[in-house]
Amino acid sequence: MPIQFDVDPTVARLAATTSAFVREVVIPAELACGGSVHDGPEDLRQTLQKAAREAGVFAPHVPTRWGGHGLDLRGQAVVFEAAGYSLLGPLALNCAAPDEGNTHLLERIATEDQKRRYLRPLAAGETRSCFAMTEPAPGAGADPRALRTVATRVPGGWRIDGHKWFISGARGAGFAIVMARTSGEPGDPGGATMFLVDAGTPGMRVVRDIETLDEGLFAGHSEIVFDGCVVGDDQVLGAVGQGFAGAQVRLGPARLTHCMRWLGVARRAQDVALERAGSRLAFGAVLGDLGMVQQMVADSEIDIEASRALILRTAWELDTGSASAAQLTSVSKTFVAEAVYRVVDRAVQICGALGISTADAPLARLFREVRPFRIYDGPSETHRFAIARRAVRPYRRPVSAPAEA
Amino acid sequence: MPIQFDVDPTVARLAATTSAFVREVVIPAELACGGSVHDGPEDLRQTLQKAAREAGVFAPHVPTRWGGHGLDLRGQAVVFEAAGYSLLGPLALNCAAPDEGNTHLLERIATEDQKRRYLRPLAAGETRSCFAMTEPAPGAGADPRALRTVATRVPGGWRIDGHKWFISGARGAGFAIVMARTSGEPGDPGGATMFLVDAGTPGMRVVRDIETLDEGLFAGHSEIVFDGCVVGDDQVLGAVGQGFAGAQVRLGPARLTHCMRWLGVARRAQDVALERAGSRLAFGAVLGDLGMVQQMVADSEIDIEASRALILRTAWELDTGSASAAQLTSVSKTFVAEAVYRVVDRAVQICGALGISTADAPLARLFREVRPFRIYDGPSETHRFAIARRAVRPYRRPVSAPAEA
Amino acid sequence: MPIQFDVDPTVARLAATTSAFVREVVIPAELACGGSVHDGPEDLRQTLQKAAREAGVFAPHVPTRWGGHGLDLRGQAVVFEAAGYSLLGPLALNCAAPDEGNTHLLERIATEDQKRRYLRPLAAGETRSCFAMTEPAPGAGADPRALRTVATRVPGGWRIDGHKWFISGARGAGFAIVMARTSGEPGDPGGATMFLVDAGTPGMRVVRDIETLDEGLFAGHSEIVFDGCVVGDDQVLGAVGQGFAGAQVRLGPARLTHCMRWLGVARRAQDVALERAGSRLAFGAVLGDLGMVQQMVADSEIDIEASRALILRTAWELDTGSASAAQLTSVSKTFVAEAVYRVVDRAVQICGALGISTADAPLARLFREVRPFRIYDGPSETHRFAIARRAVRPYRRPVSAPAEA
Amino acid sequence: MPIQFDVDPTVARLAATTSAFVREVVIPAELACGGSVHDGPEDLRQTLQKAAREAGVFAPHVPTRWGGHGLDLRGQAVVFEAAGYSLLGPLALNCAAPDEGNTHLLERIATEDQKRRYLRPLAAGETRSCFAMTEPAPGAGADPRALRTVATRVPGGWRIDGHKWFISGARGAGFAIVMARTSGEPGDPGGATMFLVDAGTPGMRVVRDIETLDEGLFAGHSEIVFDGCVVGDDQVLGAVGQGFAGAQVRLGPARLTHCMRWLGVARRAQDVALERAGSRLAFGAVLGDLGMVQQMVADSEIDIEASRALILRTAWELDTGSASAAQLTSVSKTFVAEAVYRVVDRAVQICGALGISTADAPLARLFREVRPFRIYDGPSETHRFAIARRAVRPYRRPVSAPAEA
Repeated sequence: MPIQFDVDPTVARLAATTSAFVREVVIPAELACGGSVHDGPEDLRQTLQKAAREAGVFAPHVPTRWGGHGLDLRGQAVVFEAAGYSLLGPLALNCAAPDEGNTHLLERIATEDQKRRYLRPLAAGETRSCFAMTEPAPGAGADPRALRTVATRVPGGWRIDGHKWFISGARGAGFAIVMARTSGEPGDPGGATMFLVDAGTPGMRVVRDIETLDEGLFAGHSEIVFDGCVVGDDQVLGAVGQGFAGAQVRLGPARLTHCMRWLGVARRAQDVALERAGSRLAFGAVLGDLGMVQQMVADSEIDIEASRALILRTAWELDTGSASAAQLTSVSKTFVAEAVYRVVDRAVQICGALGISTADAPLARLFREVRPFRIYDGPSETHRFAIARRAVRPYRRPVSAPAEA
Repeated sequence: MPIQFDVDPTVARLAATTSAFVREVVIPAELACGGSVHDGPEDLRQTLQKAAREAGVFAPHVPTRWGGHGLDLRGQAVVFEAAGYSLLGPLALNCAAPDEGNTHLLERIATEDQKRRYLRPLAAGETRSCFAMTEPAPGAGADPRALRTVATRVPGGWRIDGHKWFISGARGAGFAIVMARTSGEPGDPGGATMFLVDAGTPGMRVVRDIETLDEGLFAGHSEIVFDGCVVGDDQVLGAVGQGFAGAQVRLGPARLTHCMRWLGVARRAQDVALERAGSRLAFGAVLGDLGMVQQMVADSEIDIEASRALILRTAWELDTGSASAAQLTSVSKTFVAEAVYRVVDRAVQICGALGISTADAPLARLFREVRPFRIYDGPSETHRFAIARRAVRPYRRPVSAPAEA
Repeated sequence: MPIQFDVDPTVARLAATTSAFVREVVIPAELACGGSVHDGPEDLRQTLQKAAREAGVFAPHVPTRWGGHGLDLRGQAVVFEAAGYSLLGPLALNCAAPDEGNTHLLERIATEDQKRRYLRPLAAGETRSCFAMTEPAPGAGADPRALRTVATRVPGGWRIDGHKWFISGARGAGFAIVMARTSGEPGDPGGATMFLVDAGTPGMRVVRDIETLDEGLFAGHSEIVFDGCVVGDDQVLGAVGQGFAGAQVRLGPARLTHCMRWLGVARRAQDVALERAGSRLAFGAVLGDLGMVQQMVADSEIDIEASRALILRTAWELDTGSASAAQLTSVSKTFVAEAVYRVVDRAVQICGALGISTADAPLARLFREVRPFRIYDGPSETHRFAIARRAVRPYRRPVSAPAEA
Repeated sequence: MPIQFDVDPTVARLAATTSAFVREVVIPAELACGGSVHDGPEDLRQTLQKAAREAGVFAPHVPTRWGGHGLDLRGQAVVFEAAGYSLLGPLALNCAAPDEGNTHLLERIATEDQKRRYLRPLAAGETRSCFAMTEPAPGAGADPRALRTVATRVPGGWRIDGHKWFISGARGAGFAIVMARTSGEPGDPGGATMFLVDAGTPGMRVVRDIETLDEGLFAGHSEIVFDGCVVGDDQVLGAVGQGFAGAQVRLGPARLTHCMRWLGVARRAQDVALERAGSRLAFGAVLGDLGMVQQMVADSEIDIEASRALILRTAWELDTGSASAAQLTSVSKTFVAEAVYRVVDRAVQICGALGISTADAPLARLFREVRPFRIYDGPSETHRFAIARRAVRPYRRPVSAPAEA
C-alpha cells in the first residue's frame, strides 16, 4: 500500500457534483449579494441549503448518523475546496465556520443528550452556533491563556461573567460554546471549561456587531457580554477544567478545514485572472504572454499546488492520529493562509482596474476576505512561534549561564 | 554647496502647521465619515478647505500668483507627507489627486486665457477637475498608446467620441481634461491631443460610478461617455498631436506627489501599530518586545525611510530638470507603492483583530486604500518594464540572428 | 483506497538504513574533503560505493534486474532525501546526477544491446556517464531548441560536430549521451537525436573543467568539443529525430530526483541551525527563543514540509502516468529549488560567523551548492514560463486585433 | 538652502578619476587573482596603492593633515561607491575595512602621540591594522556586552587575556585595537576599554586563519589569543571604561562606509547582468526583452537607487550630528546589505551558467562576497532589533500586569 493520491470514487463524485452546484447555483447568489452576508440573511441561507440538499451535496463532513456524508478529512479536503470556490459555497453545504468546527467538537466530546439537543439540529442546518473564546485586550487572543471570562460555581450549575468579541456567527446563533475560566488566573495554562449556552439565556447578550474587512462569514463577528449568565451542570461541554484541551480537539481540524475552503477561494481568483490573461491585449500581446504576468500566474499555480499537497498530507495525519499532526496543522495554516493571500493579491494585480472594482469582478471582495485569514484562527506569528518551539525542542541543551554555553 | 537634507525653515514651519492641522481638524473628520468620500460630500470638502485656509496651510503646491505657497517638489515632499497622514488631509489642502496634478499641468502648458478660466478657480478650490485618459479594454490602460477615444475636426473646433472609465473625481467636476486621438490608430505611439471640456457640455455624460476597494478619493471613479461632444479650438490644451507628451508633464510629478501623500498614510499606519506594540500585552511581554513584531516594526521603518529618501532624491531631480528624473520617478512610484502597502499590511498584522475591524481603528480602511496604489498611475509591472528598458538600452547590441549573437 | 502517505515498510527500512549509513560513513568522508569532489576523486567514490553495497543501500533506484532495489519514484523520494543529507550520499548510493537520470533514460529507451553495454556497468557503479546537451551561447541553454551541435549522416553511422559545456561528470565518464541536431536549424522545435558516445572515441575531447560555485558534483562540469566524432548506427539512443522527446523521458524524473536529494541538503542545514539555536546564548536567551530566529526556523520547517508534500505528489503522478505530471514537475522543481535555497540561507544567517566559515561547519559549502540548483535543470524562469503557458492555455481566446478583444 | 543632491565638483572629479582608475588598473588585477586576497598578498597591495597615489585617488577619507583628500561622509559616499566597483578598489585607495574605520576612530579619539605613532603610518598605507572585538561563543558577538576578554591592572599598564576570532586583517597587521573588559562581568552593558597593541607584543598571537565564504578582504579573518599580553597606559585608546562608547564612534560611520563600498559591488554585478541582458538571445528575443528578466533588472535598479538615497541621507545625518543618525545607520546597514545581496543574486540568475562559473565572470565571486555582509558588522536581526526598540520606545506605556493593560 504505497503513498497514493487517488481520490475515492464516492468522494470524487461528490466533489464533482459540488463543483457543478457551486457554479450553477451558489455563484449567481454570491454575485447577487456581492458576497457580503455579514448581516446574516436567513432566507438566503435556507434557500441555498435547501438547494444543496436537493443536489445531494449537503453536510459532507457530518457523520452519516446525523444525516451527512461522513467524509474523513481527506475527503473533506477535496469537497471543501470545491465548495470554497464561492464564498457562499460552504454556507450552502452547511460546512462553513464556525458551525463545521462545532459539529466536529460536539461529535467528539458531547454527551449523548447534548448531541441530540445541539448536534442534531446544527448538523441539519436547523440552527446555527458560535464558539465564544476570543476576548478584547488584555483577555484571550492569540494567547488563549490570557482568558478572563469566569464561570463561578452556583447550586446545580455555573454563573458566567465576562466579555467576548470577534465571535463569528454569534448574532442569530441558536447556541454558543463558551470558554470560561473555572480556576486559576489569567495567564495560567489551565483552568478553562467549555459551556453550551442557549440563545436567550438571561445574562448573555450580543452587544455589538463588529464591522470588518471581511463580510463573507454569515452573521459576521460580534461582541457578547456575559453578566450573571447561569447554566446547568448538563451544559458543561467535556470535563470541567479541560476547556483548553477541548478547544484543541476543535481547532486542529477547524484550522485545516479553513485551509481547504480558502484554497477554493484561491482557485477562483486564479481562474478569474487566467480568464483575463487569456483574452486581454496589452502592449501588442495577450496579457498572459507577458513575462511578468507569467511569473505571477506561475507563482500562483505553485502556491495552489503546494497548499493542496500540504493540506492532503495534514489531513492524512489528522485522520490517522499521527504524532506530528499538530505541527503539520500549524505549518499548513501558516503556509496556506499566506499562499491564498498571495494568489488573490496577484489576481488583483493581473486584472488591474477590474481587480479593484467591486462591481465588475469578485476579486476586490475576495481580497478583503482573505486578508483576515492570516489573523483568524491564530495569527501567522503565533503559529510560527509554535512551529519553531517544536522544532528547537529536541536540540535544546541546558544552558545555565553564558560561561557554560 | 554639498548634498544636504536641511528643510527650508518656511517649508518646515508649513509642514509642522500642517501636521497639527491634520491631527486636530482632519483626522476627527475622517473618523466621522470612516474615511470614505467616494460619494463626494461637497459640504465636507468646503468645510475642510475653509479650515485649511484659516490655518494657513491651503494649496502648498499652487504658485503664489494663484494664491498658494508656491513650493517646489522638495517642499511638497515634506508638506504632502504631513497632509497624507489623514486620507482627507490632501483634500483639505486642495492638493489631492487629480486636482493637484491638473493644477501643475495647467500651470505648465495652458494659455493665459485657459489659466484664468480653469486654473484660477481650481487652485482656489472653487471647482474640481478630472483627467480623462483611461479607457475600458481594449482601450488605453497600462498602455496609453491603445487610446481609442477620437476627436474629429469640425468647423472651429473638435468633436469627441469615446468611452472613458476609472476617471477619478469626474462626478461633480467643473471640467475634464480629456485625452483623445486626433490622428493615427490605436497602438500608435503618437497622435493624441488633450482637451479642456466643461461640465455640462452636451455629449459628455458621467454614466456610472465605479465602486472600488478604495473610497478615499473624493467623488470616486466614474465612467464617462463622449458622444458627439463638441469643443472649441480654444479648448485644446497644449499643441494638437502632443497629448502624450503633455500627459508626461503631468504624470511625472503627479506620480511623485502620490508617493508623498501615501508615505503619510504609511506613517499613520505605522504609528497606530507602534501605539499597539507599546501597550498590548501578549505571551508575558509587551507586543513590541516580541521578536517577530520587532521584525515587522523594523521592516516598516526601513520601508518608510527608504521611501522618503527616494522621494526627496526624485523631487530634486524633477525640480532641477535632471535627465534621469523619469527613471527615478518610475523607481520611486514602484518602490513606494509597494513599500507603503507592506507597511500598512504589517500594521494590520500587528494589530490583529483590531487591524481588520473597520470601526475600532483606521487600518482596515487604510489597507483598502493602499492596495490600488500599486495599480493606479501605472501598475508596478508597467513601471518595471520602463525601468528595465532604460537600464538595458545602453547595453543593447545588434543581434540579427542567433548565429551572430 | 483513500489518499495515504504511509511508507511501504521495505522503503522505510531502506531509508532508515540509508540515514544511519549517511551519518556514520558518508558525513565523515564529506567533512574530510570539505564536500568538494569537483576533481573526481575515484578512490573516494569506490570506497563509498563499496561501503554502500555492504550496508545494503546501494542503487535504490536501479531495477532489480540490474542489481538495484527497484524503487519507484515515491520510494526514491523517501530514500534519496535520506541520502541527500550528505552532499556525498547520492554518490555513495550511485544515485547522484547525472548517472541516476541516465540510468533511468537507458532503462526506458535503450535497446537490449545498449542496456547490456551501457546500463549494466553504469548501474553497478563500474563506470560513470554524462549527458551532453547544454551548449555555450548562443546554443542550447534554457531554451533547448537553440541546439547547434550537428550530427551528419556518414556511411554506417553519424559524424558529430559541436561544442558542449557545463556537462556534469564528463571528466572521466565512460560514455556520454550526446544531443545533436540531425535536421532543421537552431531554433526549430524538433530535429534532435541522442547518441551514446564512448570515452576515447576520436573527435570527442573534454577541453576544460569549469570552476563553479558548487563543487559537490563528482568530477564537476566540463566543456566538450566534438570535431568529426563518428559513431555507429547502433549508438543512436532512441529514434532519430526524437531527441527532445527522449530528453523529456529523462528530465521529468531527473528534475524530481534532484529535488529529493536537495531536500536532504535542506534538512541537514536546518538541523545544523537547530543545533545552534538550541544551545547558543545571545541577548540573555537561547538563540532559538528569540522571535526573529523562531521566524527563520519556522519558515524553514514550512519550506521543508511543503517541498516534501509536493515531491510526493509529483512522484505519484509520474509513477502513475498522470496527465498533469509535467506541470507538477515544473512546479516542484521551481518551488523546491527556491525553498531549499531559502532554508540554507536562513541556516547561514542563524549560525552567523559559523555559517560563513568553511572550516567549522558545513553551511558555507551547502550554501555554495544550492545556489546553482535554481539554474541547473532549467532556471526557475524557464519553468515558470512553462507553468504559466500551460495554465493560460485553456483560457486563451482568439484575439486578432484590439478592436475585437 | 533647500534639499539638494548636487555633488561638489571636487568630489565629482575625484569620483570620476576613481572610476577610471578602477576600470583600467584595479579590475585587471582583480581578475588576475580571482578577487581572492585572503592570504594577504603584500606585493599586490603595495602595487595597487602606489598606482592609486599616482592617479591621485589615494586615501579619499583621510584628513588632509595626514595626506588624504579629507572628504566628509557625503563625499566618501560618492567616491567609495566608485572604488567598490572592484573588490580590490578600496584596498587600492587605502579605504577598505578595517583600516578605514580605524583611521576614523584614531582621528576622533586618539591622543596626539597615538596619532603620530598609529594614525600617520596607517593613513599612508605603510602599515595595516585590525579591530579585535568579536569573540567565539559565548563571548562578544552580535551582543557586544557578552565581552569576556579581560584587561587587568598591572603597574604602569594592563595585562590582556582572552580569545578573539573573525578579526579581519589581523594577519600581518602592524597593530590591533583590542576591546577588553576592565570591569564588570560578561553581560554588563559597560566596563570595556580599547587598547592599541603593537604586532609582536609578547602574549598576542594570531593562532588561526579562518577560511570563509568571502575572500575579498585583505588578509582574511583570523583568531587571536591574548595570554598575558602587557601594554602600557599610553596604549589605552580613549578613556578607561568607555570602550563600548568608543566603538560606537567607529561603528556608525564604518557601517555606512561598508554600505558605500558594497553598493559599488551591486552596480558592478548589475552591469555584468545588463551586458548579458543586452546581447544574449533566448526564446527568440534578447534576454533583456523577456518580462521576467526585465523584472529582475528593474528590481535591481530600484534596490540600487533606494540604497544610494538612504546612504546619502544617512551620511548627511552623520556629518551634521543629527540625533537620528544612529537609527538611520541601522536602517541603511540592514537595507543595503540585503539589497546588495539581492542585486548580486539576480545578476547570477540572469547570467545563468555564466553566473555560477568562477572563471568566466566575476559574479560567483561577488555572490560569495556579499552573503556575509548580512552578518558582518551586526547581523540584520540585531539591527532590526535596535531599529524596532527605538521606534517603539516613545509609545511604550507602563504595563505592570495584564489587568491594567
